[in-house]
Amino acid sequence: MRIEAFTVDNVPRVKGGDDITDFLQDTDLRDGDVVIIASTIISKAEGLMESLETFSPSGRACGIAERLHEDPCFIEAVLGETTEILIEKPFFLVVSKFGQVCVNAGLDRSNVAEGFVLLLPDDPSENARQLRDRIKDRFGKNVAVIITDTCGRSFREGQTGVGIGFAGIAAMKDWRGVKDLEGKALEITNEGVGDEIAGLANLMMGEGAGGTPLVIVRGISYEDRDCPVFRSEETDIIRQAIRDANRQSKA
Amino acid sequence: MRIEAFTVDNVPRVKGGDDITDFLQDTDLRDGDVVIIASTIISKAEGLMESLETFSPSGRACGIAERLHEDPCFIEAVLGETTEILIEKPFFLVVSKFGQVCVNAGLDRSNVAEGFVLLLPDDPSENARQLRDRIKDRFGKNVAVIITDTCGRSFREGQTGVGIGFAGIAAMKDWRGVKDLEGKALEITNEGVGDEIAGLANLMMGEGAGGTPLVIVRGISYEDRDCPVFRSEETDIIRQAIRDANRQSKA
Repeated sequence: MRIEAFTVDNVPRVKGGDDITDFLQDTDLRDGDVVIIASTIISKAEGLMESLETFSPSGRACGIAERLHEDPCFIEAVLGETTEILIEKPFFLVVSKFGQVCVNAGLDRSNVAEGFVLLLPDDPSENARQLRDRIKDRFGKNVAVIITDTCGRSFREGQTGVGIGFAGIAAMKDWRGVKDLEGKALEITNEGVGDEIAGLANLMMGEGAGGTPLVIVRGISYEDRDCPVFRSEETDIIRQAIRDANRQSKA
Repeated sequence: MRIEAFTVDNVPRVKGGDDITDFLQDTDLRDGDVVIIASTIISKAEGLMESLETFSPSGRACGIAERLHEDPCFIEAVLGETTEILIEKPFFLVVSKFGQVCVNAGLDRSNVAEGFVLLLPDDPSENARQLRDRIKDRFGKNVAVIITDTCGRSFREGQTGVGIGFAGIAAMKDWRGVKDLEGKALEITNEGVGDEIAGLANLMMGEGAGGTPLVIVRGISYEDRDCPVFRSEETDIIRQAIRDANRQSKA
């Protein structure tokens, strides 16, 4: 197996109303390519940049902000994207409205003007589907689309790229039924291939002013079906343990 | 930026005493390549395949095995690689002797004969260093080496490839001091690039009888310094929350 991956260079600063497929017009896309897009430019194109001043911090936001030495308006913005708080301190770990467990719900103040924050799309997979359809319409190519974010991990240092929206590609590869070298069933049954691709793309995107928000990966075979990438509450044992610990500390 | 990655094909079944660099002799390695190796073949070459019968389960192992409907000998083998138990049920999440938090300490019974288990190297980064030196000696190329495992994640479905041993490449990229598009400091400061590369390699390796344990990634620029990939106990907030929840359930 051989794959290649390349950045789409010279993407201009993205602003509200931009058509992201414009940035792909000089790219020789092929059927089967995976197009990986940083969620930041999805948010920018959707006009989701907001002045922090527009958020009136609640008492709750002020309390959290004080404990975290954070801007209360920013915490209020995070709360607006949040369905559950898991950890308040030393970092604000929450469940985002589309189900991702992430510090600050994934809201970022990097690469936006001072005093502004970039909100998240409501349903990144819907953005991915629209982009995939638009690429098909405009360039006649069947590609998969992954929208990525950068997120810390439990137990391991550092942040890595992960997928938050998928279209035309299953976030998981299902290995059930595949046999090992000895003809036995595999112990690995569900591989997060979407995040493995997102991680590579994140590495290539880089961060900061020198970064590029678009990467193409070519040569990967993948399945196309809907499957969840975020654990459901029932199967998320770590989330349950954190809740138990929270109940204990409040008791 | 453009990278390419390819599998090293036709790797035979690895057995104790094999020299892993033998499998690379037909590969046109270049300076700067990253050589990614599944930990399973490190363990096999090190002769770490053990019959489960050689493990005499303690009372503790028997209790855990009963609750998990597992083989007590296998649980005893896991306990031998474990420094701390975080979760017993519904899966056995522990800290391995080299610091990885992983189900069953990362022990796997796939791709080994029925009734056997593959133990883990004591210090995978030491294996990586030895392999890197041997590649330099034998082929005259300066490469980086990452030894990978496959591991589940908190909050997200599926398992992905991660690095457990590194040589010649920093597991983290340090973004401190880099500015964003607006000249502000980045909020992302530490990127787990080693795991992002490991994830891509894991995707290419595949699982089961059709898998291949060796992948080469070419075209990535990386730093070479020692940095931890496993969170220390002090900074591992999720681990602390799980401990707190455990204390509660025992109280």
